[in-house]
Amino acid sequence: MPLIVQKFGGTSVGSIERIKNVANKIKRAVEEGNKVVVVSSAMAGETDRLLTLTRELSSKPDPREQDMVVSTGEQVAIGLISIALKEMGIDAVSLTGWQVPIYTDDAHTKARIKKIDTGRILSELDKGRVVIVAGFQGISDYGDITTLGRGGSDTTAVALAAALNADVCEIYTDVTGVFTADPRIVENAKKIPVISYEEMMEMASLGSKVMQIRSVEFAAKYGVKIHVKSSFIEEDGTWIVEENEEMEKVVVRGISHDLKESRITVVQVPDKPGIAAKLFKALGDRNIVVDMIVQNVSHEGYTDISFTVNKIDAEYAEEIAKEVAKEIGAKGVERNDRIAKISVVGLGMKTHAGTAGKMFEVLYREGINIYAISTSEIKISCLIDEKYAELAVRALHEAFIENTENIVTG
Amino acid sequence: MPLIVQKFGGTSVGSIERIKNVANKIKRAVEEGNKVVVVSSAMAGETDRLLTLTRELSSKPDPREQDMVVSTGEQVAIGLISIALKEMGIDAVSLTGWQVPIYTDDAHTKARIKKIDTGRILSELDKGRVVIVAGFQGISDYGDITTLGRGGSDTTAVALAAALNADVCEIYTDVTGVFTADPRIVENAKKIPVISYEEMMEMASLGSKVMQIRSVEFAAKYGVKIHVKSSFIEEDGTWIVEENEEMEKVVVRGISHDLKESRITVVQVPDKPGIAAKLFKALGDRNIVVDMIVQNVSHEGYTDISFTVNKIDAEYAEEIAKEVAKEIGAKGVERNDRIAKISVVGLGMKTHAGTAGKMFEVLYREGINIYAISTSEIKISCLIDEKYAELAVRALHEAFIENTENIVTG
Repeated sequence: MPLIVQKFGGTSVGSIERIKNVANKIKRAVEEGNKVVVVSSAMAGETDRLLTLTRELSSKPDPREQDMVVSTGEQVAIGLISIALKEMGIDAVSLTGWQVPIYTDDAHTKARIKKIDTGRILSELDKGRVVIVAGFQGISDYGDITTLGRGGSDTTAVALAAALNADVCEIYTDVTGVFTADPRIVENAKKIPVISYEEMMEMASLGSKVMQIRSVEFAAKYGVKIHVKSSFIEEDGTWIVEENEEMEKVVVRGISHDLKESRITVVQVPDKPGIAAKLFKALGDRNIVVDMIVQNVSHEGYTDISFTVNKIDAEYAEEIAKEVAKEIGAKGVERNDRIAKISVVGLGMKTHAGTAGKMFEVLYREGINIYAISTSEIKISCLIDEKYAELAVRALHEAFIENTENIVTG
Repeated sequence: MPLIVQKFGGTSVGSIERIKNVANKIKRAVEEGNKVVVVSSAMAGETDRLLTLTRELSSKPDPREQDMVVSTGEQVAIGLISIALKEMGIDAVSLTGWQVPIYTDDAHTKARIKKIDTGRILSELDKGRVVIVAGFQGISDYGDITTLGRGGSDTTAVALAAALNADVCEIYTDVTGVFTADPRIVENAKKIPVISYEEMMEMASLGSKVMQIRSVEFAAKYGVKIHVKSSFIEEDGTWIVEENEEMEKVVVRGISHDLKESRITVVQVPDKPGIAAKLFKALGDRNIVVDMIVQNVSHEGYTDISFTVNKIDAEYAEEIAKEVAKEIGAKGVERNDRIAKISVVGLGMKTHAGTAGKMFEVLYREGINIYAISTSEIKISCLIDEKYAELAVRALHEAFIENTENIVTG
C-alpha cells in the first residue's frame, strides 16, 4: 500500500471552507488506496497574529515562550482538519510535534530536526487512520516545544517522508508548480515538469518562494521525491527529484530574480592576508547572513570587496562594515539598496560552455550594466540596477527558454 | 519560603494590558518573598472562538480533536504571561498540562485529574522561577491532550495547590469575593470574609458563579485554603476554609438564587415500587443532570413526581418524561420554565432549628407561593415563580442577614 505525505500551507487551510477542500483532497488520496500522513501549517495570518501578541509585551520575546505561543497555530489547524475528515467519515487523528515525537535541538524559533520517532504514526496508520501532524514544530531534550522557523512545515513534511520512507511528498501551495520565471513578469513562463534538487535549491535561494531551501536540502540528502502542486487547481505540478542524465540536456532550467538584497562595498581595502576574514567574521558574529561576495584583483595594493545581504540587515551590516573599514584602513563604505540579482539556473551548465557569455551578451544588448557577477556549477548570477530587473528577466527567458533550439542539445 | 498558587480567569488576562496587570500582581507576590505557581485560563473569548471553529466543521466535533483545538487557548495565555514577567525582570517558565504533567482520565472535554507529577514544577521553583501552568488541561494515558471542561482552571489551581502543599490558593476573578446575595439585586449585600467549603459548595451549586463546585469539592478533600479576590481591586476577598465552631454561630451565610432551571412534573403516577427509579434512570442514561427531586405522599395510590433540570435540557427531559409516563401509566407531564430557586445557606442550620419556618414565613408575608421545597443539612431551597425572584432574595436577605440580631447566637 503506497504511503504519501501531503503538506498544506497556510493559505490552503486559511478558512473553514478551505479546510473542507483540503479534507476532500485527503479523502480522495485515501480512496485511491494510499496511506496518508498530512502536515499542516497554521491558518493564514494566525502565526502573525500570535507573534504580534508577543511583540506587544516585549520587543524581544523570550524564544522558548515565543515558541510556546506560536506553535498553537498549527495545533488548531490539525485538530480542525481531523474534525473535517471525521465529519466525512474518514478516520483521522491529529498529532502535535511532541506527540509524534519530532525531536529537535533546543535552538528555539529556529530549531533543527534531530530524530523522528515513527512508532505512534505507524501504529495509527495501521489502524486505518489518516495521521495529521503539526508542521513547523518539535520537542527539545528538555521537553520544551520548539519551532523550526518560518516555512518549517515544508521541512517537517520532507523529514517525515524520509523517516517513513514515503513514496512521495506532495507540497500543496497557492501556485501550480515551479516556473521557468515569475509568471507575473514573463507572460511565456512555463511550468517545469521535473527539476533536480540542486536546481531547485538554487531557484529557492534565488527567490522562487515555492519551497524553503532547507527542506529541499533535506529531500536531496534522503532522496525524498517531492511533487509541488496547487491546492486549488487539479493538475500535475512540478516534481523535484534526483538529477539524471536526461536533465543535463537542458542547459538552463529557469530564470530567477531577487529584489530583497542590498549591496555593500568596502572601498580601497589594503590587499593584505586576513582582511576579508576579519570583515566576514565580524558580520557572522552578529548573525548577518551574507549572500554574494565579490573581490577582484587588486590595483596598487588596494582592492574593493563587495557583498550582498538581505535589505532588512543592510543598515546594520553597513555599520559593521564601517567599523571594520576604519580598523583595517580602508577608504570607506558604500551601500546600494536599489539592486536586483538575476540568475540563470540549470544542470546542463556543468557540461556546456558558453552560458555565461550568452547571458552577458543578452544583458549588454538591452543596455543593462552589470555591477557584479557570481557563479556556481549550475548557476550564474548578475547584480544589476533594480529598475532593469523585469526587462532582464524577460530578455533572458526569451533567449534561454523560449528559443529552445539554442540551448537544448541532444 | 511560603508557596502560593495564583489563578487568573479569562477576563483577568483578556487583553495585553490586563496580562501586564497580572504580571505586576505576580511580581509583587515574588517580591514579598513567596514561591509562586500561576494557573491561567485562556484570554476571554478565545475558548468560544475556538469552539466555534470546530462547530463550523461538525455539529458534534470529535472530543479528542476538540480538546486538541481548544487547549491552545491556555497555552497562548501562559506563554504571554511568561513573556510579560521576563520583560519585568522576573524569571519565569510556562508549562502546558502535558509538560507538568497533569495526568487525567481520557474522558475528553470533561476529564478528571488522576495524578500530578510535581517534579518539574519543583525543580523550576528551585531555580527561582515563577511557574505558569495552563489551566483546564491535562494528558491522558494515551499521551493525548484532555480538557477538564468549562471552569476547569479552578480545579487545576486547587489540585496543584494540594499536590504542592501550597500555603494558599488565590483565585483572582472579576468580583471582590463571595457575597451574602447577588449585589446587583440586594443593595446591602455584604462580602463574606470567611466561608466553609460546604457552604461554598451550596452557594456554587446554587448559581453564585464565583467558583466551580468541583474545584471547591477538591479543596475540601485536600484541605486547600482558598482566597477568592478581585484582579482589578486591591482588597481582601473571601477565604474558603475548613469549618470551625465559630462559623456555626452564623445560621445563614448567604441567600442564593438560580433562574436557570425548569420544573417538570409527572402527574398522577401509580405509587408502586420502582417507578421513580425507571424515570430517573431514563434521564440519567441520556446524560440529563437532575437537580431537585420532590415526591410527596400518595393519595389513593397515585402521586406526583417533580424534578428540576437546566433549562437547556428541559425540552429533551420533557420528551423522556412523556415516554416514561406512558409506559408507567401516569396521567401526563407538565413543564414550567418560569421558575426560580431561592436558597438560604449556612452551617449554623445544623444546630439551630427554625430556619425553615422563618424562611416560609418571610415568603408568605410577601405573598409568594412556594411550588416545592428541598433541604440539605445546611441549605433550604424553595421553588417559586420567576417573577418574584428578586423580591424573595431581598426579603430573605433583610430577614436573615441584615437583621443579624435575629440569627447570630453567641
